[in-house]
Amino acid sequence: MKQVYFDNAATTAMRDAVIDRMAEVMRSQYGNASSTHSMGRSAKSLLESSRKTIASFFNVSASEIVFTAGGTEADNLVLQSAVRDLGVTEIITSKLEHHAVLHTVEHLQKTYNINVNYVNLLENGMIDLTDLERLLKSSNKKLVSLMHINNEIGNKLDINKVAELCKANDALFHSDTVQSVGHYQMDLQDIRLDFLAASAHKFHGPKGIGFAFIRKGSGIKASIFGGEQERGYRAGTESIHNIVGMEEALKLSYANLEKERSQILKLKDYFIDQLQSLSSEVTFNGNCEDKEGSTYTLINVCLPIAPEKGGMLHFQLDLKGIACSKGSACQSGSNQNSHVLSEILDTENLLKPSVRFSFSCFNTEDEVDYVIETLKEFVKN
Amino acid sequence: MKQVYFDNAATTAMRDAVIDRMAEVMRSQYGNASSTHSMGRSAKSLLESSRKTIASFFNVSASEIVFTAGGTEADNLVLQSAVRDLGVTEIITSKLEHHAVLHTVEHLQKTYNINVNYVNLLENGMIDLTDLERLLKSSNKKLVSLMHINNEIGNKLDINKVAELCKANDALFHSDTVQSVGHYQMDLQDIRLDFLAASAHKFHGPKGIGFAFIRKGSGIKASIFGGEQERGYRAGTESIHNIVGMEEALKLSYANLEKERSQILKLKDYFIDQLQSLSSEVTFNGNCEDKEGSTYTLINVCLPIAPEKGGMLHFQLDLKGIACSKGSACQSGSNQNSHVLSEILDTENLLKPSVRFSFSCFNTEDEVDYVIETLKEFVKN
Repeated sequence: MKQVYFDNAATTAMRDAVIDRMAEVMRSQYGNASSTHSMGRSAKSLLESSRKTIASFFNVSASEIVFTAGGTEADNLVLQSAVRDLGVTEIITSKLEHHAVLHTVEHLQKTYNINVNYVNLLENGMIDLTDLERLLKSSNKKLVSLMHINNEIGNKLDINKVAELCKANDALFHSDTVQSVGHYQMDLQDIRLDFLAASAHKFHGPKGIGFAFIRKGSGIKASIFGGEQERGYRAGTESIHNIVGMEEALKLSYANLEKERSQILKLKDYFIDQLQSLSSEVTFNGNCEDKEGSTYTLINVCLPIAPEKGGMLHFQLDLKGIACSKGSACQSGSNQNSHVLSEILDTENLLKPSVRFSFSCFNTEDEVDYVIETLKEFVKN
Repeated sequence: MKQVYFDNAATTAMRDAVIDRMAEVMRSQYGNASSTHSMGRSAKSLLESSRKTIASFFNVSASEIVFTAGGTEADNLVLQSAVRDLGVTEIITSKLEHHAVLHTVEHLQKTYNINVNYVNLLENGMIDLTDLERLLKSSNKKLVSLMHINNEIGNKLDINKVAELCKANDALFHSDTVQSVGHYQMDLQDIRLDFLAASAHKFHGPKGIGFAFIRKGSGIKASIFGGEQERGYRAGTESIHNIVGMEEALKLSYANLEKERSQILKLKDYFIDQLQSLSSEVTFNGNCEDKEGSTYTLINVCLPIAPEKGGMLHFQLDLKGIACSKGSACQSGSNQNSHVLSEILDTENLLKPSVRFSFSCFNTEDEVDYVIETLKEFVKN
């Protein structure tokens, strides 16, 4: 059966060169980077070389990159320490954040009794920057946590603008950039955010590895205690093969960025056109139809299908070999809506099935055609 | 140059079959285990099959195994939640624990103002069980954290006895079993400990993955917040290739356990004999000379070498291609003693160089001979 993978915002296929490099490292470089003998120093040198390469893509120093087990841990490292160690008493965030941020913030609110403010959203789910500015006037010690690219609807934050507002109002700024690292270039000497979180498996690297950028002098401290790895930011023997794999994946992402971006953007445009031809009642969730205001890597579409039929849509797509993600209640048996769509859709559209299709350089227009053919059976003309 | 790796307590070489399996999984199984489509379900099925296999080696149910980024995170998960969520107000541990336990306990003491008691040690560094029994009489809500195999001196705890004492005195019992999982079989229906921590790279598996055993109904909660992975115990996309690699490594460890144990034990006996022949003044640290009271996987030897010469020992061994670990101040420039040896050695022996040699099935008697030849230049007869 045909297999079409349109769920690249959930995770991506690994590049062959990444797997080969990891296998090579696993075979030949098994030293513990904390050991002082030559096997250990050799592992340490790989580790620090990866850190340096990764740092160079963001124009920061290697010591500002802290390896973690993934984006979620990186978000937790920053948010938990900001409250515990930096005296942050107020977090400003949005209801559209990933659970790695939202649930951590809820935990911190409960444990430390901090203020949490959710910034208003515009109709298309974009952050209301005027409201953000208003919230920033509070005299509490503040941290803003807003993601760069929304993982469900693709909305792209004006991260420069937010960083400037935070600077001007003496607030720390953390951004979950899990959906943008490897897909967008970021010069962190220009973008004055304080922290970011990234995850390798979103850019064709291995699962179980990521990093936090922690700007020099921030005062962030570890949440996992033990050895002195990662200069005390995070204890535990380093996963050298995963780290080297992440480096390799990021190198390839940025080396091929322009080529792959235009290829994927063309695919996205084509997909949008085809969906609109399918039915004039097709609508797009969030800002994903807007080229400037959203990422090129995904669309989230609300389909004019009656609920009784729509409930089976994802099941049917899966049967046809199409991997995509639900935005609305369309999983057999489940009625739980996406927390993101629940915030931005009206009741009528929430009842229709929404689907997130997310792309990579491995996707083709043929695959789009196949999806459109499959959807035709469902969508009323 | 000859390369001799006698630092298997720091980390081990990966088995080829483990690397092959991981590469295969990375190539073909890139779905996110949280995705509901077939690619996701396929990853989820691998994940749960690994969990089941690993659980079976300990005679526990799969739901009692929680995957973490390694032993350190597993120790942190248990200890932090025990205090934060289970109301533990007193931790009983020992000064010989790994820093993953000691530094976490120190953090908890500072943050939550809990009582921390360090159990007395016998002369050879063994835990004084009479003193443990005395400490267990306290009426506080208690957790005992004692490692099964000491990573520096190889001392083996009577884990059954400690589990019984804890049960009888209504204390929770956590054991850092990072040095014993894969090297010793443990039936956790017999050994009634509540929690354990393990790390794959100590038994020829990948770095950056481990697990905690958390006995059913314990009430332990997550320290990393986000998605609902690991049934809420630990958020973050699962590192499927690492988890499958850990399963494969553990399977091979237990399939070859008897054969490899007797091979390694023979090597250890031979090593001890050769060292004793080298000089009558050679002494062994902790209990590592005692077959029953220590692990078969390591020795920690104190060598009759004057400090001015001993300071260069590790450097010289490294130059000769011998990877081992220092127990005492023998690193160029460093005067920091091992916290373990500092607790159990007298000043005279602390000034002499100590070396930990730790073994795996890949080591040979030839390699021991090579080490002994190299040491001859240093040790006075």
